[in-house]
Amino acid sequence: MSKVEQLVRDGATAAQKLATVSSDAKNCALETMATALEASADAIMAANAEDVARGKDNGLNPTLIDRLTLNPKRMKGMVDGLRQLIGLPDPVGTVLDGWRRPNGLEIARIRVPLGLIGIIYESRPNVTVDAAGLCLKSGNAVILRGGSEAIRSNIILSQTLSRAAAQSGIPPAAIQLIETTDRAAAIELMRSDRYVSALIPRGGPSLLHSILENATVPVIIDGAGNCHTYVDSAADLAMAADIAYNAKVSRPSVCNAMETLLVHAEIAPRFLPLIAARYRDAGVELRGCDRTRQIIPGAVPASEEDWDTEYLDLKLAIRVVEDMDQAIAHIRKHGTGHSEAIVTDDYQAAERFTQEVDAACVYVNASTRFTDGFEFGFGAEIGISNQKLHARGPMGLNELTTYKYVIRGNGQVRQ
Amino acid sequence: MSKVEQLVRDGATAAQKLATVSSDAKNCALETMATALEASADAIMAANAEDVARGKDNGLNPTLIDRLTLNPKRMKGMVDGLRQLIGLPDPVGTVLDGWRRPNGLEIARIRVPLGLIGIIYESRPNVTVDAAGLCLKSGNAVILRGGSEAIRSNIILSQTLSRAAAQSGIPPAAIQLIETTDRAAAIELMRSDRYVSALIPRGGPSLLHSILENATVPVIIDGAGNCHTYVDSAADLAMAADIAYNAKVSRPSVCNAMETLLVHAEIAPRFLPLIAARYRDAGVELRGCDRTRQIIPGAVPASEEDWDTEYLDLKLAIRVVEDMDQAIAHIRKHGTGHSEAIVTDDYQAAERFTQEVDAACVYVNASTRFTDGFEFGFGAEIGISNQKLHARGPMGLNELTTYKYVIRGNGQVRQ
Repeated sequence: MSKVEQLVRDGATAAQKLATVSSDAKNCALETMATALEASADAIMAANAEDVARGKDNGLNPTLIDRLTLNPKRMKGMVDGLRQLIGLPDPVGTVLDGWRRPNGLEIARIRVPLGLIGIIYESRPNVTVDAAGLCLKSGNAVILRGGSEAIRSNIILSQTLSRAAAQSGIPPAAIQLIETTDRAAAIELMRSDRYVSALIPRGGPSLLHSILENATVPVIIDGAGNCHTYVDSAADLAMAADIAYNAKVSRPSVCNAMETLLVHAEIAPRFLPLIAARYRDAGVELRGCDRTRQIIPGAVPASEEDWDTEYLDLKLAIRVVEDMDQAIAHIRKHGTGHSEAIVTDDYQAAERFTQEVDAACVYVNASTRFTDGFEFGFGAEIGISNQKLHARGPMGLNELTTYKYVIRGNGQVRQ
Repeated sequence: MSKVEQLVRDGATAAQKLATVSSDAKNCALETMATALEASADAIMAANAEDVARGKDNGLNPTLIDRLTLNPKRMKGMVDGLRQLIGLPDPVGTVLDGWRRPNGLEIARIRVPLGLIGIIYESRPNVTVDAAGLCLKSGNAVILRGGSEAIRSNIILSQTLSRAAAQSGIPPAAIQLIETTDRAAAIELMRSDRYVSALIPRGGPSLLHSILENATVPVIIDGAGNCHTYVDSAADLAMAADIAYNAKVSRPSVCNAMETLLVHAEIAPRFLPLIAARYRDAGVELRGCDRTRQIIPGAVPASEEDWDTEYLDLKLAIRVVEDMDQAIAHIRKHGTGHSEAIVTDDYQAAERFTQEVDAACVYVNASTRFTDGFEFGFGAEIGISNQKLHARGPMGLNELTTYKYVIRGNGQVRQ
């Protein structure tokens, strides 16, 4: 039996036990885990420093080095994250629905854990802690598979968490890390459909491609966000400028940042100069269609490729559209179904946009940047789903569960 | 562009339109479709007769010939199925949840169609009609891919339905059939993740294997049912006999039929002779563990393989277990997570079984045969999911939908 097979078997057995552990026991384990991280802070920081040094030796770029690096503030963030989970309601056991059939059968649909969840992720060691905490709180066992650049950090973090959880009576195999970083191990995890209930990849296009090609385990894709803001002819232009500025500038590197601004032709001559000045001050590079460039002469010509690009940077594509038909058609063609916004004071326009735009999150008069588990009030987030099956949009504890039907009878047989 | 690519592109465009079609218009189309089937009954039966004749020439076994054959009663069943959908509530537009955030954002989670759904199925032409109706009612476009043995029936059925729907203003591409029956076309459909939101395969192990190996589209597996009934020491034995008899005998060929009977050692000497006599009269072949065979001398010895076999036939494996621990361990090892039942009058035993057994449907004192969309009161059924993501257990109209978040603001930007 391979090492990965041993891990997923043990994980699946741990998941069976974890499914019936009480909320109190899980909360107690989360507190023990938080305390253990604090107690082991020096050792964790030392292991992380080794990863960082090795990364620098290997020429890892500064962004990745930054993501990899733990500091006291980030350590505190991980510990606080675990403690925040304690205060959140346990999703397990919620009765989602229930009814009585004419033959007297009582059917209840009850929220239960998924079982064993696989998480494949890159560079950020805080995912190790976040994912372990979220899975534990929702009654799931987890198999973690982080990137090779963070392997020392991930080993000490997962071992610390697993030992602490075990001290509170949680099976140690409820939190496991695949300690080998070769590709074959990741692929074996993706194909362990007999033991793993769901796989949540958190990474770039090459990881997603590998998942699509190899996975037999059902997957929840945390995908790309090519997000748009459409400024309608009936928009309050000051509000539109605030929203368009926030959606691009507040944190350009994240998936809910706007990548293309669509502006109704009627108000483009008034709106574009207004917002262009603010973008210029923030250092945003603008790429525009021909009509945009007639109004903002400094904008670079946008190519067809720009409409499909998730810049994740201080760059923005701008297109002037004839009407809402063209705006919606543009979003359908180029959007990734993540977050789309309209700014308008027209009731019909708002209604039509929310109905016809097919995305996880459709906004009226607000910034796309709110697509986030914490901003939605979930109190936690494991990712943002870009697919339609199972979960769509920000995923919190509920999205780490499934349900089962419990049917109580008194001797019913089927005719 | 390949034929399949053209179909999925057209289907995806039709899905966008269908998503905003009113319930009245969809119901009108369902009535037109039902009427069109009635009007074309002779032509449909003639095409089906050709399929049946070809099937017999090709040596198709009698069970498959039976599944393939349409007769006036089955025609009426398909037509009635479409009309029944008219009376069911439209799932689209239901507000599943809604709340206001401290910053004033109003978040609503709203049920919407999945988009374009692919259905890959075998022999039964009624699936063509059922799936087209269910997808239309839930606002989804559908791409159907039936088996080669039913191709003439499926072509005329899907064309009749598509034309009828178009007469009621539904885009004709809302219902499409892949008319080529080569394997490459099916694989291309499985890999059309850009256009197809979900794939629902309905078929045997070789189809499921091909899906796991090839699909990049998210899949809802309608899988195997190795279902158990556990007769506890505290069971009402007459009730247990009725349930165990019904679960095996009422329709042995379906996934919710019982395949293994687990009997507590304490009551086995009283219960097994009782039920064995009834099984004998019904012609059920019994395969038992050693202790079973001491009580039922006529039983064939059961091998380890029997515990894993879904007979789908008048055969039953029987095992005497020491206690509930052993019963639950057996189900964990051999069950497929479909439907599991306990018969008991002991409160603690019932509670423990429903909590610790991990299956889509867990029964107390009722037959596993009730795992069915109609028996659950859904009014329709597209299949029974054996996976944990998205949908679990019987799937009706709700399970053919996803949700989107609509967020209404008045200028909110993220800090």
